[in-house]
Amino acid sequence: MSDIVKEFNEYRSKMNDKILNDNNKIIKRIFNLDTNAYTEGALDVKTKELLGLVASAVLRCDDCVKYHLENCHKEGFTKEQVVEALSIATLVGGTIVIPHLRRAYEFWDALQEN
Amino acid sequence: MSDIVKEFNEYRSKMNDKILNDNNKIIKRIFNLDTNAYTEGALDVKTKELLGLVASAVLRCDDCVKYHLENCHKEGFTKEQVVEALSIATLVGGTIVIPHLRRAYEFWDALQEN
Amino acid sequence: MSDIVKEFNEYRSKMNDKILNDNNKIIKRIFNLDTNAYTEGALDVKTKELLGLVASAVLRCDDCVKYHLENCHKEGFTKEQVVEALSIATLVGGTIVIPHLRRAYEFWDALQEN
Amino acid sequence: MSDIVKEFNEYRSKMNDKILNDNNKIIKRIFNLDTNAYTEGALDVKTKELLGLVASAVLRCDDCVKYHLENCHKEGFTKEQVVEALSIATLVGGTIVIPHLRRAYEFWDALQEN
Amino acid sequence: MSDIVKEFNEYRSKMNDKILNDNNKIIKRIFNLDTNAYTEGALDVKTKELLGLVASAVLRCDDCVKYHLENCHKEGFTKEQVVEALSIATLVGGTIVIPHLRRAYEFWDALQEN
Amino acid sequence: MSDIVKEFNEYRSKMNDKILNDNNKIIKRIFNLDTNAYTEGALDVKTKELLGLVASAVLRCDDCVKYHLENCHKEGFTKEQVVEALSIATLVGGTIVIPHLRRAYEFWDALQEN
Repeated sequence: MSDIVKEFNEYRSKMNDKILNDNNKIIKRIFNLDTNAYTEGALDVKTKELLGLVASAVLRCDDCVKYHLENCHKEGFTKEQVVEALSIATLVGGTIVIPHLRRAYEFWDALQEN
Repeated sequence: MSDIVKEFNEYRSKMNDKILNDNNKIIKRIFNLDTNAYTEGALDVKTKELLGLVASAVLRCDDCVKYHLENCHKEGFTKEQVVEALSIATLVGGTIVIPHLRRAYEFWDALQEN
Repeated sequence: MSDIVKEFNEYRSKMNDKILNDNNKIIKRIFNLDTNAYTEGALDVKTKELLGLVASAVLRCDDCVKYHLENCHKEGFTKEQVVEALSIATLVGGTIVIPHLRRAYEFWDALQEN
Repeated sequence: MSDIVKEFNEYRSKMNDKILNDNNKIIKRIFNLDTNAYTEGALDVKTKELLGLVASAVLRCDDCVKYHLENCHKEGFTKEQVVEALSIATLVGGTIVIPHLRRAYEFWDALQEN
Repeated sequence: MSDIVKEFNEYRSKMNDKILNDNNKIIKRIFNLDTNAYTEGALDVKTKELLGLVASAVLRCDDCVKYHLENCHKEGFTKEQVVEALSIATLVGGTIVIPHLRRAYEFWDALQEN
Repeated sequence: MSDIVKEFNEYRSKMNDKILNDNNKIIKRIFNLDTNAYTEGALDVKTKELLGLVASAVLRCDDCVKYHLENCHKEGFTKEQVVEALSIATLVGGTIVIPHLRRAYEFWDALQEN
């Protein structure tokens, strides 16, 4: 099962390299901001990752959800906490979030198997 | 072709079980509401399924479209009626709905082959 | 209260005239389709108006909701039926639909006062 | 300035009463879930309010943003923390979030004046 | 009529000042990118403004549409060209774009009166 | 790699045929408009294709992005120009556009290999 984690990260990493090598300044800076925005500030890193997860879930972006799930896993969130965050996303975003919830569960389980 | 129906239902069913076994109260109640909302009331079941289909189509949720297509099929809607509902979705939601329309056609044809 | 109905229709009508007088062919044809899509076909007019209402509600377009509420009112839907359709929209689209639900209630009440 | 807080709460409260008196079961349960989802669980109330704020902001729902800003204010978040959460929303959701950011700033300032 | 241009610019300018004075680094950089992205590059400024307009219109952000309409006006686009761009937005984004089209027409006319 | 271009076009073409043979008038006219909207007018074909690309990207429709990338390629846009258009889409639509940007890069590279 954990192949879905590996596959996701390999494709993501390969294509990000292509994009960054292309040297479009605006895109590079957006990528750069994407790193900076989740660093410690008035809010701690853990809270910010959870915000990124919920934002991704309500906007129904599977790849973004996977990315933040992986970071939430690294930051030491329990499954119960992550699911609670996703329950808020499902309530705010509606039942159209449910298919993404199914894929989020699958990915989280794969992360825990690693 | 009808494998896409089977595959969809198996994954959906397997992951829904995992989600519901997890016992997050909010998510369980949303799943519960999702069943109750489509039962007979001031509007009949058929009309409600069609509403669910169009809501799913304009929000461009393929899995939700498949789920409601299957219910519309069970409720005895003709292809012409389903396509008319989807034509309204395409008009309201714009040409970005068209790729989902292609997949909806494929799924409906698979349902009819079963 | 019914001023919100009048105000909505006057602005809508005034601006639609300006748009149509401008003679952009694509826009004129979209307006034309918007009339044709809701006429009797394999589905009846009433069902189609309800589909238009739910599509508008999940896409959170207040003006589109108002337009279809007015047509639903003319077609003889009861408040209970309209609210049931909107309840499906709120479930599918999530709690972000609620502010639009509030405005839909206000508009429907204004329609009934006329 | 704080009139915008009062005005928002009065309209919201008045229309919510109308909606809840209408006794549509699905809508009542969604309202009920909306209360339950933000109570203490594996995540604390403060974190959940911030998740609700960011979900509302990326989905560009001004009224939902106002509602969660008010709760964040009550929960004791500093402006710097709230703005950091909104900065993540703006990054994830793009520059189309900026007009909502302007209205969020205006509302937060009004909350602090009260 | 041209008051809607003035009003829009004054509020936008006032709130942008508040946001930028607040010194959140992520938000400041996004604002900065928003200026840089529309400067001359492999594509000219005029084309970029039109891209910004269409992106804003399909995402149904009235304030963003107004901002880009004003820039398109300054860049010397004719009404016919702007309307053609908006016709593509309406086709891609669907009839839910129409209410925003009405407000775009009103704003463009106000720009031309100035 | 160019298999992804072939595969995309074959599925698209096969399903479009099924849809058009079905003779739903509204859908046929939307398809027809989709051809007409991108022809020479007050704006030239190249500009219109770029508008279609950016509209598709901010609405996060991979298939629509692929379709317009192919047309942009035929119209002679350079990669730098296409990437600049996509950078505006990523800024306006936010980091949730990035996964679609990755797939757009992959598709463009496949187009250039053909």
